[in-house]
Amino acid sequence: MTEFNQPISGNDLARFSGPNSFMRLPQAERLDGLDVAVLGVPMDIGTSWRPGTRFGPKQIRAESAMIRPYNMATGAAPFDSLQVADIGDLAINTFSLADSLRIIRDSYDGLLAAGVIPVAMGGDHSITLPILRAVAARHGPVALVHVDAHADVNDTMFGERETHGTVFRRAQEEGLIQPDKTYQVGLRGTGYTAEDFTEAQGWGFQQFPAHELWFKSLAPLGAEIPRDIGDRPVYVSYDIDSLDPAYAPGTGTPEIGGLTTPQALELIRALRGVNIVGCDLVEVSPPYDPSGNTALTAANLLYELICVLPGVKHR
Amino acid sequence: MTEFNQPISGNDLARFSGPNSFMRLPQAERLDGLDVAVLGVPMDIGTSWRPGTRFGPKQIRAESAMIRPYNMATGAAPFDSLQVADIGDLAINTFSLADSLRIIRDSYDGLLAAGVIPVAMGGDHSITLPILRAVAARHGPVALVHVDAHADVNDTMFGERETHGTVFRRAQEEGLIQPDKTYQVGLRGTGYTAEDFTEAQGWGFQQFPAHELWFKSLAPLGAEIPRDIGDRPVYVSYDIDSLDPAYAPGTGTPEIGGLTTPQALELIRALRGVNIVGCDLVEVSPPYDPSGNTALTAANLLYELICVLPGVKHR
Amino acid sequence: MTEFNQPISGNDLARFSGPNSFMRLPQAERLDGLDVAVLGVPMDIGTSWRPGTRFGPKQIRAESAMIRPYNMATGAAPFDSLQVADIGDLAINTFSLADSLRIIRDSYDGLLAAGVIPVAMGGDHSITLPILRAVAARHGPVALVHVDAHADVNDTMFGERETHGTVFRRAQEEGLIQPDKTYQVGLRGTGYTAEDFTEAQGWGFQQFPAHELWFKSLAPLGAEIPRDIGDRPVYVSYDIDSLDPAYAPGTGTPEIGGLTTPQALELIRALRGVNIVGCDLVEVSPPYDPSGNTALTAANLLYELICVLPGVKHR
Amino acid sequence: MTEFNQPISGNDLARFSGPNSFMRLPQAERLDGLDVAVLGVPMDIGTSWRPGTRFGPKQIRAESAMIRPYNMATGAAPFDSLQVADIGDLAINTFSLADSLRIIRDSYDGLLAAGVIPVAMGGDHSITLPILRAVAARHGPVALVHVDAHADVNDTMFGERETHGTVFRRAQEEGLIQPDKTYQVGLRGTGYTAEDFTEAQGWGFQQFPAHELWFKSLAPLGAEIPRDIGDRPVYVSYDIDSLDPAYAPGTGTPEIGGLTTPQALELIRALRGVNIVGCDLVEVSPPYDPSGNTALTAANLLYELICVLPGVKHR
Amino acid sequence: MTEFNQPISGNDLARFSGPNSFMRLPQAERLDGLDVAVLGVPMDIGTSWRPGTRFGPKQIRAESAMIRPYNMATGAAPFDSLQVADIGDLAINTFSLADSLRIIRDSYDGLLAAGVIPVAMGGDHSITLPILRAVAARHGPVALVHVDAHADVNDTMFGERETHGTVFRRAQEEGLIQPDKTYQVGLRGTGYTAEDFTEAQGWGFQQFPAHELWFKSLAPLGAEIPRDIGDRPVYVSYDIDSLDPAYAPGTGTPEIGGLTTPQALELIRALRGVNIVGCDLVEVSPPYDPSGNTALTAANLLYELICVLPGVKHR
Amino acid sequence: MTEFNQPISGNDLARFSGPNSFMRLPQAERLDGLDVAVLGVPMDIGTSWRPGTRFGPKQIRAESAMIRPYNMATGAAPFDSLQVADIGDLAINTFSLADSLRIIRDSYDGLLAAGVIPVAMGGDHSITLPILRAVAARHGPVALVHVDAHADVNDTMFGERETHGTVFRRAQEEGLIQPDKTYQVGLRGTGYTAEDFTEAQGWGFQQFPAHELWFKSLAPLGAEIPRDIGDRPVYVSYDIDSLDPAYAPGTGTPEIGGLTTPQALELIRALRGVNIVGCDLVEVSPPYDPSGNTALTAANLLYELICVLPGVKHR
Repeated sequence: MTEFNQPISGNDLARFSGPNSFMRLPQAERLDGLDVAVLGVPMDIGTSWRPGTRFGPKQIRAESAMIRPYNMATGAAPFDSLQVADIGDLAINTFSLADSLRIIRDSYDGLLAAGVIPVAMGGDHSITLPILRAVAARHGPVALVHVDAHADVNDTMFGERETHGTVFRRAQEEGLIQPDKTYQVGLRGTGYTAEDFTEAQGWGFQQFPAHELWFKSLAPLGAEIPRDIGDRPVYVSYDIDSLDPAYAPGTGTPEIGGLTTPQALELIRALRGVNIVGCDLVEVSPPYDPSGNTALTAANLLYELICVLPGVKHR
Repeated sequence: MTEFNQPISGNDLARFSGPNSFMRLPQAERLDGLDVAVLGVPMDIGTSWRPGTRFGPKQIRAESAMIRPYNMATGAAPFDSLQVADIGDLAINTFSLADSLRIIRDSYDGLLAAGVIPVAMGGDHSITLPILRAVAARHGPVALVHVDAHADVNDTMFGERETHGTVFRRAQEEGLIQPDKTYQVGLRGTGYTAEDFTEAQGWGFQQFPAHELWFKSLAPLGAEIPRDIGDRPVYVSYDIDSLDPAYAPGTGTPEIGGLTTPQALELIRALRGVNIVGCDLVEVSPPYDPSGNTALTAANLLYELICVLPGVKHR
Repeated sequence: MTEFNQPISGNDLARFSGPNSFMRLPQAERLDGLDVAVLGVPMDIGTSWRPGTRFGPKQIRAESAMIRPYNMATGAAPFDSLQVADIGDLAINTFSLADSLRIIRDSYDGLLAAGVIPVAMGGDHSITLPILRAVAARHGPVALVHVDAHADVNDTMFGERETHGTVFRRAQEEGLIQPDKTYQVGLRGTGYTAEDFTEAQGWGFQQFPAHELWFKSLAPLGAEIPRDIGDRPVYVSYDIDSLDPAYAPGTGTPEIGGLTTPQALELIRALRGVNIVGCDLVEVSPPYDPSGNTALTAANLLYELICVLPGVKHR
Repeated sequence: MTEFNQPISGNDLARFSGPNSFMRLPQAERLDGLDVAVLGVPMDIGTSWRPGTRFGPKQIRAESAMIRPYNMATGAAPFDSLQVADIGDLAINTFSLADSLRIIRDSYDGLLAAGVIPVAMGGDHSITLPILRAVAARHGPVALVHVDAHADVNDTMFGERETHGTVFRRAQEEGLIQPDKTYQVGLRGTGYTAEDFTEAQGWGFQQFPAHELWFKSLAPLGAEIPRDIGDRPVYVSYDIDSLDPAYAPGTGTPEIGGLTTPQALELIRALRGVNIVGCDLVEVSPPYDPSGNTALTAANLLYELICVLPGVKHR
Repeated sequence: MTEFNQPISGNDLARFSGPNSFMRLPQAERLDGLDVAVLGVPMDIGTSWRPGTRFGPKQIRAESAMIRPYNMATGAAPFDSLQVADIGDLAINTFSLADSLRIIRDSYDGLLAAGVIPVAMGGDHSITLPILRAVAARHGPVALVHVDAHADVNDTMFGERETHGTVFRRAQEEGLIQPDKTYQVGLRGTGYTAEDFTEAQGWGFQQFPAHELWFKSLAPLGAEIPRDIGDRPVYVSYDIDSLDPAYAPGTGTPEIGGLTTPQALELIRALRGVNIVGCDLVEVSPPYDPSGNTALTAANLLYELICVLPGVKHR
Repeated sequence: MTEFNQPISGNDLARFSGPNSFMRLPQAERLDGLDVAVLGVPMDIGTSWRPGTRFGPKQIRAESAMIRPYNMATGAAPFDSLQVADIGDLAINTFSLADSLRIIRDSYDGLLAAGVIPVAMGGDHSITLPILRAVAARHGPVALVHVDAHADVNDTMFGERETHGTVFRRAQEEGLIQPDKTYQVGLRGTGYTAEDFTEAQGWGFQQFPAHELWFKSLAPLGAEIPRDIGDRPVYVSYDIDSLDPAYAPGTGTPEIGGLTTPQALELIRALRGVNIVGCDLVEVSPPYDPSGNTALTAANLLYELICVLPGVKHR
């Protein structure tokens, strides 16, 4: 009988103590037997405004020490039935965005071949492109739940085709995602033309701008998305800047008028039952929130994502 | 005719000036004639994650200098009819939690014997246990309004029975509170099992998890609680981490998805007319919010609590 | 054919680069041909609690570099049809409030004579009094949309008649505004007597306290105000402390229980079509929000105000 | 036999607790019997760059809680033989520099008439002008030890004759100080012409620029100044920006290449035996050093100044 | 042939990546084969002013990622000849100082029995008492190099005999150290009487107050101490507050006029050749230095201590 | 007769006001007539640890507003005889280090062809390689004064040959500098082998490690270097991390035991009379020093460098 990895309990070792792994889970060097691999992709050279996301994984892990294993609101007990470990960071090349994206792709090919569900801590959003390439190579074009202030569908930035602002255009061009099963939630802010958003609608993307969600529970939207997805494989990419800066000040390109954490929790909790094959949480920039609360929020959202992975038991 | 203590007016002395007492009220060394005693309990050795609440009273007092005496929203004019003073800090033993709890108990026995309503600025939440012991010794088991992210009903932490996470189990075991008149509002986050919360429901505690309150006015709940309490003596324990970290970043164990300040204000304002015999505001940790805004929030909530004490006139 | 000034695009020059003008618009030394002049009024000697607003214009400009020209939510494209430039800062006398107010008045007389709409970045709220004097001298008594935590209708502060807390009483006394077309939105907090607010209601001011707006869309209120104003000339004075400190921590006199940024956006967006003759955004204090997010919020609100100026095209 | 006021001991009451008076000395409302009055002059409207010194007295008092009564290095025991109390803050007019200077002058006339030695916590440096007016009115022109990065001998700033940059020209013009017994220590930085400094040398001022003091003990200079002063009455004005920003980051107009705290301590300790009739410590700006260490440094320098006041016993 | 543990190279894995162990050395669960064990003792309940040292080990480890294995100034290559690992944190009881000290003692008995040299990252200074008890139990009374602003020879604090201010009196009373081979370097600040320091001199302690060391190289003192110690076993206890707050702002009880980092480096480097049997670096408080530079300094001093342990090769 | 550009005087426009150009000098779009061009190179993608230097130019400019035109210590009046302007930022490609280096090279070719002396504000140190390429193309191999904690002579980092750690090996390989007229001042810290430094000595580099300079005036070294250089063209590259973190906390790879600002000033001032053809100040990272003091230090060092450019008059 499998013994499942458990986070170190706050009653066994003071929370400010112990390994700096996600939730103080065991750190694994090998993938065998793992169902879920939490990993860091520490990088910020794909970002266009404030840097700092290279320190994201470190601070998310530090703040995750406060999270306990059982989800009081949903009853999820992810560590009862999934073997989860923190497998450390990808060894990206901090001087080359192109090379780093290649490394991420290669690493993900290995992770997916081993059958684990990868849960990534970013890093800036450019990491999601090579991840989707690997995911699509294994699962075919996937449904995509993309929570973000920005659509990230620019064609190029400074002539570069692969940055944190071009990810989902590339993903669509390369057939990595199913456009009509792509949900962009939380979009807002300023742009250059209406086409910045509407062009993607033309590809089939379903967009839910923030201002249509203000003051409201996202439970109804949360109920609709899984129905629409059905049993397709799904990737979830969660940009912390989908949240209002009041809730997540420590990020690189904050936009006012965003989601609240209750909305984020409702949205993620609604994904219970869908076939998630991977997910990420990106754009936490520690230098812009020394309190650690943005990273704490990110750690909680990652935990909630793990709570809705296939196979999680509830009690 | 009594002359009631008044806060120093911002028109008489610049707000950044003057004594560091709560709302710049007179500082009293003796209790005679006082209706309400505001006091600090500067302590953080009962906390399990971020420290710093030992500086809570100092920063709450500093930020309270901005508050004026009249409540524009409710019409309460607490300093028209109550004699209120800041009686300084309890002389806790910063190296011993056990000894500090004993000192708090003894001090509260004195305060209550003098007939004042004590309004405490924490300090971590472990201060509430000795306070409740003194309160129950005088008033019998009290109704309890407990606003918090955490139920604080652990049995032990590191083998210790008296910490900031075990307060209300001890209070229930010792018969200090009336379990079925105990209201826990704002609970959320993670735990070890469902029993972390439900066991307390078995004792009679009425629990209102945060996720059932999202997006909503708390006026209806606020109306229900006083009706249920009737004329019983009530203690109010307000943990600043009941608020979402967006509203109160400077605290020791923040949990996302919390209450908003409008909700907090509604809840406290609804308590007008109940027989409050004491209250506290705990877990403000200044090092984690150098802006002072968390302490400012705490100072306002304490002011609002004073506005609903028995005998406050409205105009 | 006029070529309209455009912000430097983030695709042409990295956002952390380039001039420190508002939205990286061209800096103008002369007013000819301008429709809208954005300007700084860097001052904090009229403030009564935390200082720092003297650095407001600098930080608002820095953070505004992230804003793109097109409003995704409303379709406004202000730089398609208005000639907008940043004309720099007024040369106030940092050692004399009285002299500074005189300088502002004189400068505004010049701006209005040139036919531009002035959009001011404060500075503390005392700047609005000399602005209104100039505005009324040109346009007669104006309607006023005043979004703020405070009514700013004190008679004197420390014996002074012109400070950040007395602006709108002076404006009313001097006949600069139309009292029954004066809308104060977001009022809250503490005072000395009920008259602190109600006296102004007696003059005709329409007041919308924050607690009546909690949890709600401001679209209905936003719809009502323009209807009531009609085609009168309107001045909009936006105090960043109208927002809850969670949304705008970096300000001088924060009050809890305030507006959210979605509410602020709704309110401003509703003003499309009214005859705005000038506006300001005041009380951003950079030392109290080193993250820059309060200034980013201010920059966005200023952009939204520009989006509703007369003559803005939508596409 | 007089009982002398003592700071509350850190063994009696935890240091983070108790009154926010200087060194937790008793707060006095009356001057009778006092030898030394410590007071705050919370003001920043005379400053030309970063504001914030209005909060200086509050933070200096908070940090002074760490200081014990006996000087380990010099053996001074100031509270054995002097009656010292904290008399609170002067009630300055925060909206008018001119009025505030008048208030300071009047207050000092009263203090000096009562025979106390006033020890002021600033506030910006403009407070020293009215102080010197009162001091000279009582003692005649005094010797002046002025430790500062800046000579503060401008004629006017923005047309104003009384600001933090013009203090010592005014003092010289008005005959408040003895020019050839005026010592300016720590001068450095940039100016407009060589005359910025040399003109004052022409008046007789003895200037000791920082770059002549680098790497060296100030004991020799410290020995020379008292010899030169003899038994004249002396005022000491200590601007915290005399220190290098490494040692005092929280100030309004920092200049690199400054003094170190060992140099400051040597200089002050050397003044033992001179006839000090008053002193101040100015320009601590809390928003620019949230750690509190600049204020801690200021508190220690004030303590060291008290240790060299006439009549202090050593043991 | 032994292969010695090496820090992960910054050329193999980006420095902001990888395990949060000291210098990114391997983490060991067992002691066999280790020469040196680096460990954390995360605790702050023995501190009397600012808390936060419970997060010291975490931040020291994070900042240590920047240190490379070879000492450019001294030629020491500690990882060529010593087997060093990070063995994690001791599982202290965060609610009980007494229990925590017991746990430290027991843990150290085990470490010393295994023959490793323990290098501790504090934590507040109270950890050194149980460490010395274990060290003396194994090695007999040791010579002590104690670098600190404070002598820490109080008898009791709040009636407690074991706190961060009483460590070395207890050590002397219990015969854990050789009094005449005890060197206290960097002492300064304020106290209650001259005996605060001189009593310890009476026991034989050799004290080197900071003010006798200002402006000077510590190489001469550094040369003298090892000569005096001879081949006795030595313990080195390094309190980060020995440094001036300019160099180490993030600590609990800062004192101005302290040592510089060049002096600290000279002092430690001079210990090459003495028989060090253990050492610690204490009192780093992360909340008071969000830049991480105090922890970086601590990490470097710990590295320098490892460079002078017995058996280290130079090349 | 030429009228030379002057910084806006602090007596004409409040220092917190006006353009964000270096020292509030005029901003120039064209190079004709300029002797000196101050420019920003906002970039951090060549850095290996903390990011943030992309915001360096912005913050250096902001803090430079405090500097006045005349050098009180040296008598230099650079704006009496040199035409200096701020020409803005280079339009680097924030997603590609290689492309950015190419852009810098091209831009510098233009600057040097126009005959101006370029004074660059970094940005990370990788900017110096393309600068030296352009400088050598124009002037031949130059003498180099390189003040830094690090030698920056790695061969590759993550396989990349052009990063902030490889600059001076590349410069030496490519014959851009005269090795025996290359002075590296301030070196310290840790490495991999002694050769990290000594290999460069083998090329002829003259290295002056920090520990040989502690406690000492750099005037003697400052006198020696110009003598050795003679009339060769010289480039000065000043890395802010040459300073101790106490003096410059806001940088990417701080090393303890560094230079002091007095030493930095002495070193730069000693260069008066040498034939400087360009210089830079790099590695200021604003997110790690929100006080702005590191940038203020950088701004002053840049000013001092301008004071020793050929042709500067003294008065």
